[in-house]
Amino acid sequence: MINELVAQIEKKDAPIVVGLDPMLSYVPEYIQKKAFSEYGETLKGAAEAIWEYNKGIIDATYDLIPAVKPQIAMYEQFGIEGLIAFHKTCAYAKEKGLVIIGDIKRGDIGSTSTAYAVGHLGKVQVGSKEYAGFDEDFVTVNPYLGTDGVKPFVDVCKQYNKGIFVLVKTSNPSSGEFQDQLINGRPLYELVAEKVVEWGEACMGDTYSNVGCVVGATYPEMGKILRKLMPKTYILVPGYGAQGGKAADLVHYFNPDGLGAIVNSSRGIIAAYKQDKYASFGETGYADASRQAVKDMIADINGARANR
Amino acid sequence: MINELVAQIEKKDAPIVVGLDPMLSYVPEYIQKKAFSEYGETLKGAAEAIWEYNKGIIDATYDLIPAVKPQIAMYEQFGIEGLIAFHKTCAYAKEKGLVIIGDIKRGDIGSTSTAYAVGHLGKVQVGSKEYAGFDEDFVTVNPYLGTDGVKPFVDVCKQYNKGIFVLVKTSNPSSGEFQDQLINGRPLYELVAEKVVEWGEACMGDTYSNVGCVVGATYPEMGKILRKLMPKTYILVPGYGAQGGKAADLVHYFNPDGLGAIVNSSRGIIAAYKQDKYASFGETGYADASRQAVKDMIADINGARANR
Repeated sequence: MINELVAQIEKKDAPIVVGLDPMLSYVPEYIQKKAFSEYGETLKGAAEAIWEYNKGIIDATYDLIPAVKPQIAMYEQFGIEGLIAFHKTCAYAKEKGLVIIGDIKRGDIGSTSTAYAVGHLGKVQVGSKEYAGFDEDFVTVNPYLGTDGVKPFVDVCKQYNKGIFVLVKTSNPSSGEFQDQLINGRPLYELVAEKVVEWGEACMGDTYSNVGCVVGATYPEMGKILRKLMPKTYILVPGYGAQGGKAADLVHYFNPDGLGAIVNSSRGIIAAYKQDKYASFGETGYADASRQAVKDMIADINGARANR
Repeated sequence: MINELVAQIEKKDAPIVVGLDPMLSYVPEYIQKKAFSEYGETLKGAAEAIWEYNKGIIDATYDLIPAVKPQIAMYEQFGIEGLIAFHKTCAYAKEKGLVIIGDIKRGDIGSTSTAYAVGHLGKVQVGSKEYAGFDEDFVTVNPYLGTDGVKPFVDVCKQYNKGIFVLVKTSNPSSGEFQDQLINGRPLYELVAEKVVEWGEACMGDTYSNVGCVVGATYPEMGKILRKLMPKTYILVPGYGAQGGKAADLVHYFNPDGLGAIVNSSRGIIAAYKQDKYASFGETGYADASRQAVKDMIADINGARANR
């Protein structure tokens, strides 16, 4: 699956991914009103509003971007109805040719990780039939439980040609609390990075591994070191834009081949119409505002890469 | 919520929790056949089989036990239909007076952890209304992202009188890969334990905190130390039975007050009828086999505690 992602990034010249992390407060009033008039102020109403909102953004941006990254928590907060919207969003984005990175940050003991991997990336056996539960292309995985919590995901990736991004150094302010702790003089995240390389060797694509990692845009010095530690590992980079990461900081997340990193923006794209810069699009032009924000982000990242 | 859990444990004299982690292969043939004849060999059919199976186990054991711990991965593998079965299972067990420990091992950056906490423990705002998505009483939380990934759960616990169990030392074979790494001479899991105490101070029940932790039964020496490091922290103990943890090993997970730990068994209870020991119950007596296995587990754990 990493081959498909790289091909899409190269074809569209866009090493970016749009984070579909909808808060109900991002959804334009007119979409909320329409959904509530049909389903009431219910979980189904909220889920419908989010689905319509996502659909608009996908329609307006799919030709420019290689992938979307729906954050499942934002759907799970609305219970079953929210998860139906998550599933519909994944399926629709896939129909539009996009790679789906499910930001699910799952991870558990062996048999349980297998269940997550099967549900999100593989197929589950029911009697004589097989079904894909959510059918994402990549998912994010939490490494705290060690190899036997990650290996089942790798096995499912091999079987179904899918991929994962393992959390190495996350973008949030307190990520260092445990991740930066020194073990024999080296931070924990470097140990995790070494394991990511090891796990990834068993699941290589043409140039990069199907086992990628997550390194936040907010820690560029660490990103620079991690890039060198993991030359064949694709880095999913959250934290650009709203969280504070700048394009100039991100050039060292890329390899000399211009590949090796995919930068995520969520709020900065999907709620672009709420920024002064894109206010002229208005509420009903929210999807066009997202399209413009995608173009600006691509120019920003590619500009920084060119000036490296 | 920890007060309710402690009260239930004392009332039933049973410091145990039944892990509702159904694999389709555990579900008796006759239940699978009935579900498939109604819904076909579909995800809905699988979910229906699991729900019927769970219902039988809950009906046969609820008067003996304080709590159930459904493992969401086992439902999530069947997609939306599976999650509907998870939700029904939680609601039904709650109707029967049981405390619900959702084994979800979520954890993310701040705003995303808030969404998980709201969806599983709190209520989400939809227009002028509020809804509980899954409405568990406790959930398990992964600490890899540090304080700002856990704090949102604690805040929701305070608001809605709920609780969490944070992963400290997990029961799986490779848990030591990162968790046991020494930082200034002390293992990472002890640093996490110290943070758990700190997070828990902000969310105390009468004697114990609403912020508990997970320490696997398979590491009893570490459990002994962690018990002393965290005197007011309830320990959820997976790994008893099928994973290899023995009752005698677990006595030091309890405080001198006889409280402080709740031991989980999943397969050993829910698939008891598949063991030689309970084979005489037969497939149709699977729920009665589970009831007997619960009684035996309580006797085993309480016996070990008495001989401490």
